[in-house]
Amino acid sequence: MQRTELKDVGEFGLIERLKKNINLQNKSSIKGIGDDCAVIDNGTDFYTIISTDMLVEKIHFDLSYVPLRHLGYKAIAVNVSDIAAMNGTPEQITVGLAISNRFSIEAIEEIYAGMKIACDNYKVDLVGGDTTSSTSGLIISISVIGKVQKNKITYRNTAKPNDVICVTGDLGAAYMGLHVLEREKQVYQSNPEMQPELVGFDYLLQRQLKPEARMDFIHELNEKNIIPTAMIDISDGLASELFHICTQSGVGALIMEENLPIDQLTYQTAIDFHIDPLTCMMNGGEDYELLFTFNPNHYEKIRKYIDIIAIGKILEDKSIIQLQSKAGTIVPIKAQGWKHF
Amino acid sequence: MQRTELKDVGEFGLIERLKKNINLQNKSSIKGIGDDCAVIDNGTDFYTIISTDMLVEKIHFDLSYVPLRHLGYKAIAVNVSDIAAMNGTPEQITVGLAISNRFSIEAIEEIYAGMKIACDNYKVDLVGGDTTSSTSGLIISISVIGKVQKNKITYRNTAKPNDVICVTGDLGAAYMGLHVLEREKQVYQSNPEMQPELVGFDYLLQRQLKPEARMDFIHELNEKNIIPTAMIDISDGLASELFHICTQSGVGALIMEENLPIDQLTYQTAIDFHIDPLTCMMNGGEDYELLFTFNPNHYEKIRKYIDIIAIGKILEDKSIIQLQSKAGTIVPIKAQGWKHF
Repeated sequence: MQRTELKDVGEFGLIERLKKNINLQNKSSIKGIGDDCAVIDNGTDFYTIISTDMLVEKIHFDLSYVPLRHLGYKAIAVNVSDIAAMNGTPEQITVGLAISNRFSIEAIEEIYAGMKIACDNYKVDLVGGDTTSSTSGLIISISVIGKVQKNKITYRNTAKPNDVICVTGDLGAAYMGLHVLEREKQVYQSNPEMQPELVGFDYLLQRQLKPEARMDFIHELNEKNIIPTAMIDISDGLASELFHICTQSGVGALIMEENLPIDQLTYQTAIDFHIDPLTCMMNGGEDYELLFTFNPNHYEKIRKYIDIIAIGKILEDKSIIQLQSKAGTIVPIKAQGWKHF
Repeated sequence: MQRTELKDVGEFGLIERLKKNINLQNKSSIKGIGDDCAVIDNGTDFYTIISTDMLVEKIHFDLSYVPLRHLGYKAIAVNVSDIAAMNGTPEQITVGLAISNRFSIEAIEEIYAGMKIACDNYKVDLVGGDTTSSTSGLIISISVIGKVQKNKITYRNTAKPNDVICVTGDLGAAYMGLHVLEREKQVYQSNPEMQPELVGFDYLLQRQLKPEARMDFIHELNEKNIIPTAMIDISDGLASELFHICTQSGVGALIMEENLPIDQLTYQTAIDFHIDPLTCMMNGGEDYELLFTFNPNHYEKIRKYIDIIAIGKILEDKSIIQLQSKAGTIVPIKAQGWKHF
């Protein structure tokens, strides 16, 4: 048998290959692989939406600096974020947990305590799951089920030329939080007498360790009856998510660097770490903010009501996915999936 | 912090501890942890039901004798079996896959090929998932979504005194299939020149490697408009599942050994392996047959129409969960969860 290495194909290549052979046969299956959630029609005014995520120890988290309670919280939040990205509301989750015997019952209860706080916060019910043993690390697999009014569902593939591209919040902080934690881990490993220097980095650490799904924004959109033309959550970094929207919508995009939102602490920490702040924002990932598009005619009305940041616009030419730097230079944006293999 | 070992508490003890702190807040959440599926009400005549299962390499499967295509098939079938156990029909699945770089793209495609055959067979759509890397083995996490008419949903906790206890198919074959495979693995490891002796064990191997969810039986129940009083699928062994039905329904049970269904090959292989055939049936597990109860007044009518086997009856006294041996001796039945830790 031929042997193709995972690293030669990458995440997106693998998904493309697997998708080829999959087709939907049930009339209730509205949308399969290719968006933040799968979409199911139960014959009411609402779609049921569902998303699954796996968090693997040493790939997605490092227990030498991630508290178990935060891990539980984050596992829920990142899944709820996928529901938010469809303009939906989460209602139930199931939790699959594979654990090695190095974890005590109390450790597992810590993870669940964090999950419970997140469930209460996002008004989600933990309705089921599976707990099993693992030969090595900890693996958390979560499925979240939500609903969205049929006329409000927001896909990735529906951005239109001239749409305004917007984001919530600020970008790159979670990535710099990871760098701070990694630095202190190195320091500690070379000299266990040293105390970690985490003071002053609160915002970055919180963004990395305990991110929030932007359900507050989704509820605001809902109250004001505003529907984006396309939406996705920013888990892998702005560049990667922008590529998803553009390729799936068959459009291009121009992003203005000067409009990209970055917190002052993220900016300064990036400089101190000799990292380009633009890289943090474009490729950092794990911000769990929302990237979305609006019809320009609606945008002027909308911006008076809600706190969003316009960072660029959708172009008709799908071959152009570019960034205009502060100096005015135009550079192509590169996509990036995960590279864990 | 206190440290309680997983092995001291076991699967059921852990689930009980975790369940304590969980409560349901959304009115759409009808049933949480404690049955084969969680139950969600979307406001139609049907409930949405969902179940999650994790399959971990070296815990649930051994790739030295499990073909990847069979593994993919089995991963789907065992999840569909949970939908069957609620008297429901599966419609969608999501697949989470954590894979180390020792797997090639072609190997992953083999797993998906098996999943696709199962999806086609059970008329389920693969609508989403997550693919990530793992530091060691292969982990498959599946969530299956199905539906069931509200007036036909069958829980575990609704068995009534005097109900007839029934099973589909025969028991213990998957367990003996595992023993045959393990024996041949030992032989091969001690002398790689030896060819595995698998001829003649087809039925046992098929039951272990490519089990089927009993959707055929569920469809038959549906066509004939027959609704069991309680139902569960047999994944951990008859004894364990009987305990779930009894403790959750607050009833006891008496099982007649002479009525327990065993295939002749299972019986003979067990004898040859010096294993008690009764142990295969009671504690073997992985049969994925259905265990269910009927009102005795309906039973006589029902047995004329469908092929089921009565193995005992439900008792009012919940302290009695017993087996009457062929010789007439009464012995208590012991529950068994998994013991992977």
